[in-house]
Amino acid sequence: MTTVMISLNSPYDFWQFGEWHLKLLVADFPEVTFELVADVDAPGRVPEADVYFGWSFSAEWLAQASRLRWVASPAAGVDHLPVDRLMEARVGLTRGYGYHGRPMAEHALGLLLGFSRGLFLSQRLQARAPWWKDQLADAFFDLHGQTLTIVGCGSVGTQLAIAAQALGMHVIGVRRQAHRTDGIGIEWKPASRVDEALARSKVVVNLLPATTETTGFFSATTFDACQRGAVFLNLGRASTVDHTALIAALDSGRLSGAGLDVHPTKPPAPDDPLRRHPRVVLTPKTATFSRTYMDRAVAFFHDNLHLYLADRPLNGTVVPLPDGGTHAR
Amino acid sequence: MTTVMISLNSPYDFWQFGEWHLKLLVADFPEVTFELVADVDAPGRVPEADVYFGWSFSAEWLAQASRLRWVASPAAGVDHLPVDRLMEARVGLTRGYGYHGRPMAEHALGLLLGFSRGLFLSQRLQARAPWWKDQLADAFFDLHGQTLTIVGCGSVGTQLAIAAQALGMHVIGVRRQAHRTDGIGIEWKPASRVDEALARSKVVVNLLPATTETTGFFSATTFDACQRGAVFLNLGRASTVDHTALIAALDSGRLSGAGLDVHPTKPPAPDDPLRRHPRVVLTPKTATFSRTYMDRAVAFFHDNLHLYLADRPLNGTVVPLPDGGTHAR
Repeated sequence: MTTVMISLNSPYDFWQFGEWHLKLLVADFPEVTFELVADVDAPGRVPEADVYFGWSFSAEWLAQASRLRWVASPAAGVDHLPVDRLMEARVGLTRGYGYHGRPMAEHALGLLLGFSRGLFLSQRLQARAPWWKDQLADAFFDLHGQTLTIVGCGSVGTQLAIAAQALGMHVIGVRRQAHRTDGIGIEWKPASRVDEALARSKVVVNLLPATTETTGFFSATTFDACQRGAVFLNLGRASTVDHTALIAALDSGRLSGAGLDVHPTKPPAPDDPLRRHPRVVLTPKTATFSRTYMDRAVAFFHDNLHLYLADRPLNGTVVPLPDGGTHAR
Repeated sequence: MTTVMISLNSPYDFWQFGEWHLKLLVADFPEVTFELVADVDAPGRVPEADVYFGWSFSAEWLAQASRLRWVASPAAGVDHLPVDRLMEARVGLTRGYGYHGRPMAEHALGLLLGFSRGLFLSQRLQARAPWWKDQLADAFFDLHGQTLTIVGCGSVGTQLAIAAQALGMHVIGVRRQAHRTDGIGIEWKPASRVDEALARSKVVVNLLPATTETTGFFSATTFDACQRGAVFLNLGRASTVDHTALIAALDSGRLSGAGLDVHPTKPPAPDDPLRRHPRVVLTPKTATFSRTYMDRAVAFFHDNLHLYLADRPLNGTVVPLPDGGTHAR
C-alpha cells in the first residue's frame, strides 16, 4: 500500500489543497492512501509517507523518513528544497511546470505595458499634475516592432514569448546552453552571448532560477550592455541581480523602469530605496498568483502519480527516483 | 493642377507632419502641389486648397473655400469636425483607420493587466505597506478564461480582441447593428442586447464614438448590468459615459476598477474626484500615442490621394465626395 502525505497549506485558497482535490485523487487511486497534514504536523508524519506532496521539505526530516521515495513540489523553482541531501538519501524530487507560465506571462506583460504606455507614470501624476500628456509623450514606447530578451527562457519564458509575439514583438531567448529550436520563432542565444541580445532589446525579462551559476548574473556590466532607456523585469530570483548595480542603472537613465516581483528580503526593508524609486514598481512575489493554480498543480501530480505507480520516469524530475521496483505494495 | 494643403502640427514629433513625409508625397505625386501651413495660417490659406489634410477644420472656413473638394483627417473620430456643414457644402470628408488599433490595443491591455494583476494597487502600496500580498490575493484575477466585452467594436476593437484572445480571453463585440462575421471568433451582439454581454464579462472596454445616439450610453442601468467587481475601461469618448453613475458604481464595488483615457474636461478639474479615486487610473488621452503614428497616417493619405486622383471612392469616407470629375486638372 502506497501512502501519499499531502501538506499544501496556504493563506490563499488558490494555493491550498482542498477537499475537492482530495476527492479527485481518492476516486482515481483507490489503491493509494492519502493523508492530509497541516504544516506543523508534517515533520512528525513524514515517517508514514512513501510519497510527500508539499510546498516545503526540510533535510532534517530525512532521518526518520525510512519509507520515503519521492518528494513532489508544486513550485517551479527548487532553491528552497534540500536537493543535494535528497540525492544523497536516494529520495526522488520533482518540481511542477506548465501552469506557472500563464499567470507569469500576464504579470510580465502587465508590468511591461505599465511602463511602455506610461500607465505607472500616469498613476503617480494623476492626482496633482494639471495635465501630464507631455511627460507621457517623452516616456512611452510602442511594443510593436521592439525586441524583448528573456533570460532563462524555459517553459514560462516561452509562454511570455508567445504573448509578446502576438503584440508584434521580436523575442530573443537566452539559455545557458546554445540555441534550440521551438517552432514558434524565438531567436535563441547562449548565455555567453547575452550582451548581443541586450544591446538589441528595449525590454529585458529575467526568469533565471537561483543556482550557484546565476548568482549576480545581472551585474553593472550586464546593465551597461542594455540599451539606454530599456525596461528590466525580474520575475526570476532576486539572487541573480546585483541590486546596487540595478539602482545605479535606474539613476543613470540606462534603465527607464524596473518591475520587480522578487526581492532580496521578503518583505523589503521599510527604507529599501527601491520602494520609493520613481522608476520602480514592486509586486510582492505574486507573478504566479492564479485562481486555478492548485487545480493545475494537482492535475500535474495526478499524472505523475500514475507514472510513479507504473514505475515509469516522472515529469519535472530534479532528482531521479532510484532504479528498481518503485514501491513496496 | 491639384493643390493639397497640409496642416498637421503637434507638440509631439510622432503627430507632426515632417520633411520626410513631404518628400515622400512630392516624389510620388509630381502632378500635385503640396503646401505646408502652420495651424494659425490655415484659415487664410484654405481658399487655395483642393484638398485639405489636417487635424482640424472649422465650418467658418467653408465660405472662402471655393475650390475645396476633400477634407482628410488622420484622426479616427470625427466629432471635432463639422460633418453636417461639410455635407451641406458638398465637401467630402475622410477619417483615418487601421493605425489606431495597435497602440490602443496595447493601452487597453496595459490598463486591464494593471488591474487584473494588482499592479496599480502594488504601486500605491509599495512605499509604505509592510507587505501587501494579502491585498493582492483578494484583488487579482486571471485574464485567461475570462470574458471581455468591447462596446463599439470596430477596427480598433478587433485589434484589441486579437490581443485578448492570444491571452485566452473570450471576446464579445457589441455594435449598433446585429452581429457580423469576422473569421477571428468574436461573439457579436447588437447594442440592444448589451446587458447580456455585460452580465458575462469581467472586463468591459468602451470604444464608442461620440454621436447623438451614444451620449450617456454607460448609465447607472448599464453599470448595474455589469458583473460585481468588473473592470471598466473607456478609450472611446467621455460623452458616452455618465460619470456620476461611474463613480457610484466604483464606490459600491460594482466596478473594481476603471481606466479612463478620455475625460469630460481636458484636463480634468483639480478637484475632479476621479483624480484621487483609489480604483481609478487616468491617462491623458494618450491611448493613440505611437511613434509611427504620422508615418502610417501619411501612408493612408497617400493611398487615398491615389484614389482621389483616379476619381475612385476613398477609404474612410464619412462624407462622400460629390460625383463627377474629381478635379480640374
